Amino acid sequence: MSHTFHISKSHRHLKWDNSLQPIATVPSGSTLTFDLLDGGHNQFTATSTTASITTFDFSLADPAHGPIFIETAEPGDVLKIEFLSLKTASYGWTSIFPGSVGFGLLHDEFPDPMLKIWDLESHREEGYTVFKEGIHIPINPFLGVVGVAREQEGEWSTIPPYETGGNIDCKHVTVGSILYLPVKVRGALFSCGDGHAAQGDGEVCGAAIETPMEVTVRLSVVKGMKWVESPHYVTSQQHTANLVRGGAKGEYASLGIDADLREASRKALRGLINWLVAEKGLTREESYILCSVAADLKIVEAVDMPHFGVACSLPLGVFVGPPYI
Amino acid sequence: MSHTFHISKSHRHLKWDNSLQPIATVPSGSTLTFDLLDGGHNQFTATSTTASITTFDFSLADPAHGPIFIETAEPGDVLKIEFLSLKTASYGWTSIFPGSVGFGLLHDEFPDPMLKIWDLESHREEGYTVFKEGIHIPINPFLGVVGVAREQEGEWSTIPPYETGGNIDCKHVTVGSILYLPVKVRGALFSCGDGHAAQGDGEVCGAAIETPMEVTVRLSVVKGMKWVESPHYVTSQQHTANLVRGGAKGEYASLGIDADLREASRKALRGLINWLVAEKGLTREESYILCSVAADLKIVEAVDMPHFGVACSLPLGVFVGPPYI
Repeated sequence: MSHTFHISKSHRHLKWDNSLQPIATVPSGSTLTFDLLDGGHNQFTATSTTASITTFDFSLADPAHGPIFIETAEPGDVLKIEFLSLKTASYGWTSIFPGSVGFGLLHDEFPDPMLKIWDLESHREEGYTVFKEGIHIPINPFLGVVGVAREQEGEWSTIPPYETGGNIDCKHVTVGSILYLPVKVRGALFSCGDGHAAQGDGEVCGAAIETPMEVTVRLSVVKGMKWVESPHYVTSQQHTANLVRGGAKGEYASLGIDADLREASRKALRGLINWLVAEKGLTREESYILCSVAADLKIVEAVDMPHFGVACSLPLGVFVGPPYI
Repeated sequence: MSHTFHISKSHRHLKWDNSLQPIATVPSGSTLTFDLLDGGHNQFTATSTTASITTFDFSLADPAHGPIFIETAEPGDVLKIEFLSLKTASYGWTSIFPGSVGFGLLHDEFPDPMLKIWDLESHREEGYTVFKEGIHIPINPFLGVVGVAREQEGEWSTIPPYETGGNIDCKHVTVGSILYLPVKVRGALFSCGDGHAAQGDGEVCGAAIETPMEVTVRLSVVKGMKWVESPHYVTSQQHTANLVRGGAKGEYASLGIDADLREASRKALRGLINWLVAEKGLTREESYILCSVAADLKIVEAVDMPHFGVACSLPLGVFVGPPYI
C-alpha cells in the first residue's frame, strides 16, 4: 500500500513553530511531491539583475513547505527521508548581498551586491550550467531546508539549522541519499524547501545556485535509532561518482591556518579567491560566487593546537580544458 | 642536469628556527630522498602496546628533517614541492593520549590512552591495512610536516602549522600533488617529516596512521606567485580516484550544529562515534581512532548564522561487504 501526496507552493511557513497546523497528515512510508518556492521566496526570476537585490525582502527568506504530520511518529523516533527526485527550474540565481547585511563568510570584505542568473536548461542533459566561457558547474541538486519541528515552543527563524535539521545546506543529501532526523514532537511535523542546483561545502558567499524545485521524498518513521540526536545521513555510490565528476581533474586548494576555526576558513577562502583573480582572470565577486557554488571547505586538521588548518578546495573539473597536472 | 640528494634520519630538528644551519644546499629543481623518523620520533615500534604511552616523551614529537637551503630562493618567492614517492614502513601506529594531555578534538571525553599498531605490510599490494575483521583502511600516504622557515626569529614548536606550512596534516598533499609554500627567508630552509599512511580530514583523535617513511620530493623555486601567502596545493586525478576508492559505497555522516565551529565539529564527531558504537559494535576508543584515520570533517555551511553545520563523514568503503544503500 503506497500513499502519494502533492503539496503546492502556497503551503509554506517562515518560522519553525511546533504549534503550526499541519497541512497534511500522512502514514509512515508515504511519498510526497512538493512544488517548492526557492530560498528567496521567488523574489528573483530569470530576468532579475543586481539592481533587483535592493528590493529583496529578507523577512521572506528560506520558506519551508509544510508542516506534514506523519502518523505514528513520536518523540524519540527518527524520521527517515529518502530523496526520490529533485528537479530544478529552468533558471537559478546566486547573490552576494551588500556587506552591510552581514551575510556570507567574507561579508565585511564584499561591500557591493551582485546577482548571477544561471541557465539551468540549455545543458540539463549534459549535467552542467555555464558560469562563464570555459567554466562549467556540475549540477548536483539537493534541498537546503529539510527539517522537523523543534521541541522548544515558539517561533524559530528558518535561516539557521538546528539539531532537528532545517536549513542544513548540506549538498550530500541528494537523490539516492537518506537523511535521518530526530523526532521531537508528535507527528514529527516535516517541512522542506530551498532548492539548490549546486553548492560547495560551506556555501561561502551565502547562496548556492538557488532555484525553485519540484521534489519527491518518501517519509518513514523508524523506531529505536537512539544515536540520531542530530541530522545523520548516508550517501549513495552514485553521489560519490557525481562529486568525482567535478574532481576528476584534481583540485586546487588554499590552506587557512589560524587559532580560530572560522578565521582559518576565511583565510582559506581568501587565498582561493586571490588565486582565481590572479590566475583565472575572474573578478573578486565572480570568484566569491564560484567558491560558493563549487568549492569545499575541509577541516584538514583540528588538533595541532593552537592552530587549525582549513582547506578551501575547488574541483578543477569546472575548468574546460586539459588537467592542470 | 638533475641533482639528487639523500638525507638521513639523523638530521632532524624539533623547532622551526630560521637561524638553524642548513644540512644541505641544493639547486632549484633538485630531487631529495629523506629517510624520516615518524611523528613520534620512533618512540613506538611494531611491538609497542598501550602501556608504552606512559613513557612517551612529547618534547620529541613531530621532528622535521632538514633544513635544506635551496639556492636562488628569496623572500617573496614560492617553493614548489612535488611528491615523487612516499613509502611507509612495515608498521604504523595510532594513539589516543590520556585526556589529561589535552590532545585530540574530544580529549576531555577520552580519559584513557590507547595505542593501535597497524600491519602495513601484509596487504601493501592491495592498498589497505586491516583495522579489525571486516574493516579495511585504504592507504593514502602523505607527510604531515612539510614546511619552510618562518620570517620570525626564534624557536617555534613543530606541532602547530603556520602560514609557511609545517605540521599541516593535510592528506591531500600526496604522490602526484604539488604543494606551494611562501618563502620567507633566503634559501627557504625546507624541512619535512611525520609520515602518515592514512588520515581523515581533521585527524580528530590527534594521530593518523603514523609511520616512518622514505620520501622523495623535488624542490623548485618559483618567482612571481604573489597570491601564495599560505600553503596552496593542487591534487591529481589519481588522488581523486584514490579517495573515491574508500567512498565508492557512499558515506555515512553525522551533522554537528552549533554557533561555534569547533563545537559543531565536536558534535559531528560525537555523533559518528555514537553510530559506530551502536551499529558497528566498536568501542568508543576504536571509533575515535577509526574516525581519525578515515572520516572527514566537512564544513557544510558557514553562513546560516548563528549556526554552523559540520559533517563528520566516513566512507563506507572501509566496511567489507555490500553497500549500505
